[in-house]
Amino acid sequence: MSGSLEEFRKNRERMNEKILAAGNLQIQRFFNLDTRAYEDGALSAKLKELLSLVASLVLRCDDCITYHIVRCAEEGVTDAEFFEAFNVGLVVGGSITIPHLRRAVERLEECRKLPEPNTKLGKG
Amino acid sequence: MSGSLEEFRKNRERMNEKILAAGNLQIQRFFNLDTRAYEDGALSAKLKELLSLVASLVLRCDDCITYHIVRCAEEGVTDAEFFEAFNVGLVVGGSITIPHLRRAVERLEECRKLPEPNTKLGKG
Amino acid sequence: MSGSLEEFRKNRERMNEKILAAGNLQIQRFFNLDTRAYEDGALSAKLKELLSLVASLVLRCDDCITYHIVRCAEEGVTDAEFFEAFNVGLVVGGSITIPHLRRAVERLEECRKLPEPNTKLGKG
Amino acid sequence: MSGSLEEFRKNRERMNEKILAAGNLQIQRFFNLDTRAYEDGALSAKLKELLSLVASLVLRCDDCITYHIVRCAEEGVTDAEFFEAFNVGLVVGGSITIPHLRRAVERLEECRKLPEPNTKLGKG
Amino acid sequence: MSGSLEEFRKNRERMNEKILAAGNLQIQRFFNLDTRAYEDGALSAKLKELLSLVASLVLRCDDCITYHIVRCAEEGVTDAEFFEAFNVGLVVGGSITIPHLRRAVERLEECRKLPEPNTKLGKG
Amino acid sequence: MSGSLEEFRKNRERMNEKILAAGNLQIQRFFNLDTRAYEDGALSAKLKELLSLVASLVLRCDDCITYHIVRCAEEGVTDAEFFEAFNVGLVVGGSITIPHLRRAVERLEECRKLPEPNTKLGKG
Repeated sequence: MSGSLEEFRKNRERMNEKILAAGNLQIQRFFNLDTRAYEDGALSAKLKELLSLVASLVLRCDDCITYHIVRCAEEGVTDAEFFEAFNVGLVVGGSITIPHLRRAVERLEECRKLPEPNTKLGKG
Repeated sequence: MSGSLEEFRKNRERMNEKILAAGNLQIQRFFNLDTRAYEDGALSAKLKELLSLVASLVLRCDDCITYHIVRCAEEGVTDAEFFEAFNVGLVVGGSITIPHLRRAVERLEECRKLPEPNTKLGKG
Repeated sequence: MSGSLEEFRKNRERMNEKILAAGNLQIQRFFNLDTRAYEDGALSAKLKELLSLVASLVLRCDDCITYHIVRCAEEGVTDAEFFEAFNVGLVVGGSITIPHLRRAVERLEECRKLPEPNTKLGKG
Repeated sequence: MSGSLEEFRKNRERMNEKILAAGNLQIQRFFNLDTRAYEDGALSAKLKELLSLVASLVLRCDDCITYHIVRCAEEGVTDAEFFEAFNVGLVVGGSITIPHLRRAVERLEECRKLPEPNTKLGKG
Repeated sequence: MSGSLEEFRKNRERMNEKILAAGNLQIQRFFNLDTRAYEDGALSAKLKELLSLVASLVLRCDDCITYHIVRCAEEGVTDAEFFEAFNVGLVVGGSITIPHLRRAVERLEECRKLPEPNTKLGKG
Repeated sequence: MSGSLEEFRKNRERMNEKILAAGNLQIQRFFNLDTRAYEDGALSAKLKELLSLVASLVLRCDDCITYHIVRCAEEGVTDAEFFEAFNVGLVVGGSITIPHLRRAVERLEECRKLPEPNTKLGKG
């Protein structure tokens, strides 16, 4: 792991702010669309976070996996649900996802240990 | 589109049978794991099919998208739910997924028109 | 090749209309962002189309390559420029891109033969 | 399948010739490097073709898979060897490779049926 | 590099144990299939490790590359063989694999320096 | 970030030298083709570096992004141009590219702060 969840959260917010401050209107709109894609609708926020967690696993992006694990945990996803979602990602994406699965499980552990307010990620 | 849903279904079954008949035990076991990953458990079959539909969209595999659209429709996924799932895939995977989204929507239309028994795909 | 440029254009427009008609506001906004990403700005429309052509080549999406070849041709990209852009994509993306390069060159030929008005793709 | 092995071979040669005739020296050199990567050396041509077959399977490129199946068959790869190589690709790349595996097995069948001289692909 | 081979090995084993201890039967079965894919059969273990090394290079997964370099070295792969396999991966996967190739060569050096017992990775 | 631009540059040069010293002629030729793909021709070096920056963003390779940001800055790419190129990559490649975009912007900042001679990367 390249740092704690807390470091991940701070760095993510700091750099997102810089990107949004750079003044490219279309990038700002993309970030807005990205945030809104996970709001409750015909599908629940919880389910959408799970969709994106598995998408992040098969696309093998550690930071995206970390973000969606924290959000899934906030939405009440249980360990059994996490591992069934991981299994879908593992079967679809193959053994090449295993190093990311190892880091995902490490993040999940870290996430379970933290008092809830500390794990809160601002959406977006 | 390279053929009707019915042609897709027949060709898929025909070739799966040949693969399983080739006698490689580990490939047979992989196919079995693949089937079982979508059974009801801590997460419902419906949700798991949605997970795999979005994973297939971001990984840009038309045949996988077709298969999971049919299975999602069998599990009662509504059009509004389909399009919210498509939107998650589109935001995560980007405009490179749009040609696959066009074919996905064409398959969904085809799927809605067929009487239900014809759309039944054997699992696996 | 799975069809002529004219068939590609018609099918693309027909399905884009269906997707936009489905009423998912966020997908509509994504399509709008996608269109606007290629407008003249600090970088010219021509250069942005070349950026996306090479991105489509390394991501290996035939429909995206076809679309951006037509748009690049409309923006006046010469054959020598096309092949230098293809070379960047080939070196970055490797021999796995060669089947797409073959189809790209076939599309470019088709595009050069058509009278210009027929090759006009609506943006978006 | 989008055509017979014979159609694949003819189209591949026709378009490769056009690409090489376009006069971009670096693309010509890349094609040369691509051909030479599979020559006997510290590793045999047979083994290198198998390496590239599995790489093509996990990268999910049907034309590349077709090409290397024909070349592997020419190098004497047996069915049992093919299926063990397919299994490595399937485990590493996951179920998303299965549609490509179906087409691979269809190509292998076609390849086994043809009298050997017809299946000969010019290298490169 | 994010750590020594020894740290990689320890972390890999620690997290694999946690994943297997989580009690998801299908993930356990996947890990078992993953281990068995590399056993001697119609193709030798050495060849299968090379197949997976090149697959890992074109899919650009550093941890997978590290693992298979160690296993290949245990199976007696020579430097000349390693570099010919790297070349196949480089040609197929393109210059985007070069940063992974740099780290692969660094791992290979580390691996050659260690006395053999220390480099032994438990399979699976 | 896993290190400063200066560390990146030194490590990159050190490992490239080792790879070239290993004596595999084809890998040496590939590296040569890679260098020459970015020379002025029908398209300018600046434009080719931008092509490869966006290709690296959609393929999600941090080291490649870092390298091409430095080269683009050397070729006089302005911040407005960088962000429009980033936007093309973001739209094409989706939100999965955002963690790489965050690191790209961090590298761009670092690059702007350094006196120009220190940021000079040897080509190739």
